[in-house]
Amino acid sequence: VSARAGIVITGTEVLSGIIADRNGPWLSERLRERGVELAHIAIVADRREDMAAALRFLASERVDLIVTSGGLGPTADDLTTEVVAEFAGRAMVLDEALEQRIAAIVAPLAERWPNIDREAMARGTRKQAHVPEGATVLEPVGTAPGVVVPPLDGAADDGLPTVVVLPGPPRELQPMWRTALETDAFRAAVAGATVYEQAILRLMGIPESEIAETLRVAERSGVDLAPLEITTCLRRGEIEIATLYEPAAADVYAAFADFVRSRHAAQLFSDDGTTIDEQVAALLSGPPPRTVAVAESCTGGLLAARLTDRPGSSAYVLGGATVYSNAAKVALAGVDPALISQFGAVSAEVADALADGALGGFGADVGIGVTGIAGPGGGTPEKPVGRVHVAVAEAGPGGRRIARRLDLPGSRPDVRDRTTTVALHLLRRLLRGEVDDA
Amino acid sequence: VSARAGIVITGTEVLSGIIADRNGPWLSERLRERGVELAHIAIVADRREDMAAALRFLASERVDLIVTSGGLGPTADDLTTEVVAEFAGRAMVLDEALEQRIAAIVAPLAERWPNIDREAMARGTRKQAHVPEGATVLEPVGTAPGVVVPPLDGAADDGLPTVVVLPGPPRELQPMWRTALETDAFRAAVAGATVYEQAILRLMGIPESEIAETLRVAERSGVDLAPLEITTCLRRGEIEIATLYEPAAADVYAAFADFVRSRHAAQLFSDDGTTIDEQVAALLSGPPPRTVAVAESCTGGLLAARLTDRPGSSAYVLGGATVYSNAAKVALAGVDPALISQFGAVSAEVADALADGALGGFGADVGIGVTGIAGPGGGTPEKPVGRVHVAVAEAGPGGRRIARRLDLPGSRPDVRDRTTTVALHLLRRLLRGEVDDA
Repeated sequence: VSARAGIVITGTEVLSGIIADRNGPWLSERLRERGVELAHIAIVADRREDMAAALRFLASERVDLIVTSGGLGPTADDLTTEVVAEFAGRAMVLDEALEQRIAAIVAPLAERWPNIDREAMARGTRKQAHVPEGATVLEPVGTAPGVVVPPLDGAADDGLPTVVVLPGPPRELQPMWRTALETDAFRAAVAGATVYEQAILRLMGIPESEIAETLRVAERSGVDLAPLEITTCLRRGEIEIATLYEPAAADVYAAFADFVRSRHAAQLFSDDGTTIDEQVAALLSGPPPRTVAVAESCTGGLLAARLTDRPGSSAYVLGGATVYSNAAKVALAGVDPALISQFGAVSAEVADALADGALGGFGADVGIGVTGIAGPGGGTPEKPVGRVHVAVAEAGPGGRRIARRLDLPGSRPDVRDRTTTVALHLLRRLLRGEVDDA
Repeated sequence: VSARAGIVITGTEVLSGIIADRNGPWLSERLRERGVELAHIAIVADRREDMAAALRFLASERVDLIVTSGGLGPTADDLTTEVVAEFAGRAMVLDEALEQRIAAIVAPLAERWPNIDREAMARGTRKQAHVPEGATVLEPVGTAPGVVVPPLDGAADDGLPTVVVLPGPPRELQPMWRTALETDAFRAAVAGATVYEQAILRLMGIPESEIAETLRVAERSGVDLAPLEITTCLRRGEIEIATLYEPAAADVYAAFADFVRSRHAAQLFSDDGTTIDEQVAALLSGPPPRTVAVAESCTGGLLAARLTDRPGSSAYVLGGATVYSNAAKVALAGVDPALISQFGAVSAEVADALADGALGGFGADVGIGVTGIAGPGGGTPEKPVGRVHVAVAEAGPGGRRIARRLDLPGSRPDVRDRTTTVALHLLRRLLRGEVDDA
């Protein structure tokens, strides 16, 4: 192993289970991509002695790099930078230029709070502008700067690791991590680590056990999997096959990808890293450009929210109707009340009518209708919790349609989320002009 | 502190970020309920030396109790019990009665797999029936037994902690934890632990630095904060003040809560642990029961999705219109096109009209209108990215209304998410009949 690392997640709220940590798993994947082996993730409260103990433990495990998340805020219980400085044997010094840059960031925020205590704010800013002497400052993404703290040259204990100190919010941590990678201090810490290639295959409509079998058959057919580190995982209803390999094994990976491609031609939808959301956005953007609208019941707005999650989606999303009540299905999505009384609100017929309603109501090129039972209540023996109907329809005479009846496992959030994934996949098929082979 | 614990989560998939750990947060809450302070959660791979290092680290931190999860399966890479035995200085011994009980559990499972290797199965069963000498066995919930391993009496190092060894699957770990609580070995480890109280105050419309100042002022005013472990955190635009305290300090906490209550009367919305989502759901459920509908633009369905996130929400959410295009605002939410051309789609006037459109279109008791610029594009000097208008309106003549213009910081997902929080807070005010003091 060329380089070894530890992660310290700080935060009483994370340790106590109030907030779920997203940074540990994310950083773990990023380290693996850089060829750095992760030894431990330590989760500690915002307590000085516990944070220091975790740093000392990782150092005693001879890691080359420690990445911390959290504890960079303006208040006194945000201790990370200070504890790391002490660990590294470096004094905390005020970076006045940094103080001014932080002040410039928070000034417009303060405008909104006429009664704000400006002195407290200035104290917070000054606190955040204190950094370990000799550390490389990582510019704030939110308001808090990060730092990369190299070991002291010629220190008594030469074996101390470099520490990368990052903020807790993932939207700040993730861009700042990329900045940290470019620093000399980071490069020195992981010098010699092999940078791995990572490639991802995504499949829809296949059980995870089937992929385990595919790996076995591939090996029996003479595909050499030894140089590939393959992990498969089920994510939001899709199967992801993530493979790490050294650049020299690119041909081996290509042979493996070809094998999966030919064995699962109908299920493989991405071999270039793109997600279903990205593919749908690209198809809608065109050419030819097409617009979409939705009429959804059990997903309650989640499908529209997922489609509008992307910057620029206003170019192709006209809107959606969340039609939870039957009256709303009739009034807003133009569903014939007779359909509801004959087939029930959760039926293929109503999903179809909702797709048509989305087309008509918004004047869209493609409409999506969703109706189902997300649970935990509302199920019956004939229509159990998890039963969902999804329909996508093209505008105009002879417009094509695709529809599915689903019986989804899991809890209410699972059923709702999984349904949006299926809807995006049906939308993709329709937009690509694929025939419905259901 | 009367008892202190550490948690060791084992599993290469968890460490590498492929599987999200659910046991750490769950055990953390259970420990807190028992008055046991959690010092660290360590996540380690299924590697003997890393697991042993994590145990030694926690022992060096003088914890009284270690809880492990995972690594109890029948295969050779399931190492936890063995590593813990070595850590505790106890030999591994075969428990023949346990072996027979495990064999009885797995026999019917084997029936389903005609090609199963029965010798390998028997080897696995025998492996799982090896336990540290003197440990208390926790009967299998799935197929794997757990153990509670007390420190050796009169051992050289008397300070070693008791170790509770639990399986990885949460559906096995959780019932087994309750069994472990009843063992003498567990009781001895946490003897004398004080069961702490936890209380949470939630505030909206206040910067985090202001809370830091409030803590300082409270102390200066003679409120004794020393017996309280206070952490503050900014979450989805709200401030959470979580406090842990011993039952004897209940009066101190009450004085602190009163101080916050009087200083931030307008901002404090929860002192009983309830979230804004729960409060809104309770207010809508009644009495009197009221229905809600939304017409949203920049949040693109997220507000409807958040309202329908809760089981049973179909009782009070009639639905929503995601009106991204101007044409949809007119057609689905009945917005007068003249308003859009005169004031622009992002304006107080259009937010008001959207709220009215939600009322009318769905026949709801309360309507919410949202329009804004989530970014990253679409901003202008007059209407920058982050500008959002939210309006809530009551049905009927003389129906009350509350509206806000917001300038929200952050990225597109931040602006969208924060807007849903503000909308819920305005909805709460309206439902409570509070006057608008904007």
